[in-house]
Amino acid sequence: MSATSDLTLYSYFRSSAAFRVRIALNLKGLRADMRFVHLLKGGGAQHADDYKKLNPLQLVPTLIAGGQTIGQSLAILEYLEEQVPEPPLLPRDVLARARVRQLALSVACDIHPLNNLRVLRYLKNELQAEDQARTDWQHHWMKLGFEAQETLLAHDPATGLFCHGDTPTLADICLVPQMFNARRVQLDLAPYPTLLRIEEAAYRLPAFAAARPENQPDAE
Amino acid sequence: MSATSDLTLYSYFRSSAAFRVRIALNLKGLRADMRFVHLLKGGGAQHADDYKKLNPLQLVPTLIAGGQTIGQSLAILEYLEEQVPEPPLLPRDVLARARVRQLALSVACDIHPLNNLRVLRYLKNELQAEDQARTDWQHHWMKLGFEAQETLLAHDPATGLFCHGDTPTLADICLVPQMFNARRVQLDLAPYPTLLRIEEAAYRLPAFAAARPENQPDAE
Repeated sequence: MSATSDLTLYSYFRSSAAFRVRIALNLKGLRADMRFVHLLKGGGAQHADDYKKLNPLQLVPTLIAGGQTIGQSLAILEYLEEQVPEPPLLPRDVLARARVRQLALSVACDIHPLNNLRVLRYLKNELQAEDQARTDWQHHWMKLGFEAQETLLAHDPATGLFCHGDTPTLADICLVPQMFNARRVQLDLAPYPTLLRIEEAAYRLPAFAAARPENQPDAE
Repeated sequence: MSATSDLTLYSYFRSSAAFRVRIALNLKGLRADMRFVHLLKGGGAQHADDYKKLNPLQLVPTLIAGGQTIGQSLAILEYLEEQVPEPPLLPRDVLARARVRQLALSVACDIHPLNNLRVLRYLKNELQAEDQARTDWQHHWMKLGFEAQETLLAHDPATGLFCHGDTPTLADICLVPQMFNARRVQLDLAPYPTLLRIEEAAYRLPAFAAARPENQPDAE
């Protein structure tokens, strides 16, 4: 599993879903052969026939592992966790695991899917939404999600240095890339002090810092 | 765990995310105290202070289990699977589990979040999208998702009577409610014969049939 040839990751530097998987690979000490899928050039390499065969959803990331293709970043994260249990990215206790998954999914289901490239394109091309309307859209869903996360995290003694305890979990792996996206669209993050504190702790770890978009070979 | 008092589910009959949890509870033979959150009346009971305290994301479902509040339907499903392993809703093999989770998440992340009530309201109220434009929007994301699912399922020998093998998994639990939603907006499902075949098999099980929106106490 640790040999480079065992894992291949299709990534795009700015994709926050790919960013999640890059963090997890780093935390687990795993290396993957990297393939880069440029989401913008020529209408998007994710729609090319070759990639579509790998991942019919035409989204990044895709991981090839054990000869199988896995789409969906959270399916990939759960796979990595089951295949390489150390260091754990989920707590042991069943209710604690539920808490971490709720936090991770609230990003992956309720913030990110509304703000990814294909949706912004649809708003522009099909609904003729202007730049400002699209920025408002993005801010709206991010604010709703971040407010909920801040409430869940700030008032729960289970929150530690990270979202759950003092080591990173799937919750941080989803949160930090979403905050990166929020900065790109100039969302004011000051109302979320707990999220900012956790983000700072995360970037002190090389696993998070090395996974940042600007540190990828395909960064522009 | 099987005592009624151990689990409380906040549900709305038409919520497809709550529908998923109802199916899982039925498959596991679990009973929950049911509380009904009317998403439309008076602007939506999900935004009431009491409910917002339980679930800051102001979405259904929410499960109370072991004194802890769990939002996010997939976090609930994974919790139920870990807490009550039989009958299993995920296969044993790690790569097979990844396949099932990919299918489940492709509904939960890439179809459903774009078509839920809060998004349709935003399209109408903030973007002034007309009825037809909102229907087109819903059809668009459902078609993309169902086409991908059909491709993934139709060409994989791992597909059986259900999405994975001959017993229901998280993949079917997510797929069937999404198809219910698609019918509500008159999406033509004929292009997805494998999905239709699986849906038919699912509704032959009382666990799926009893969880249908029209069979809920709060159905209108």
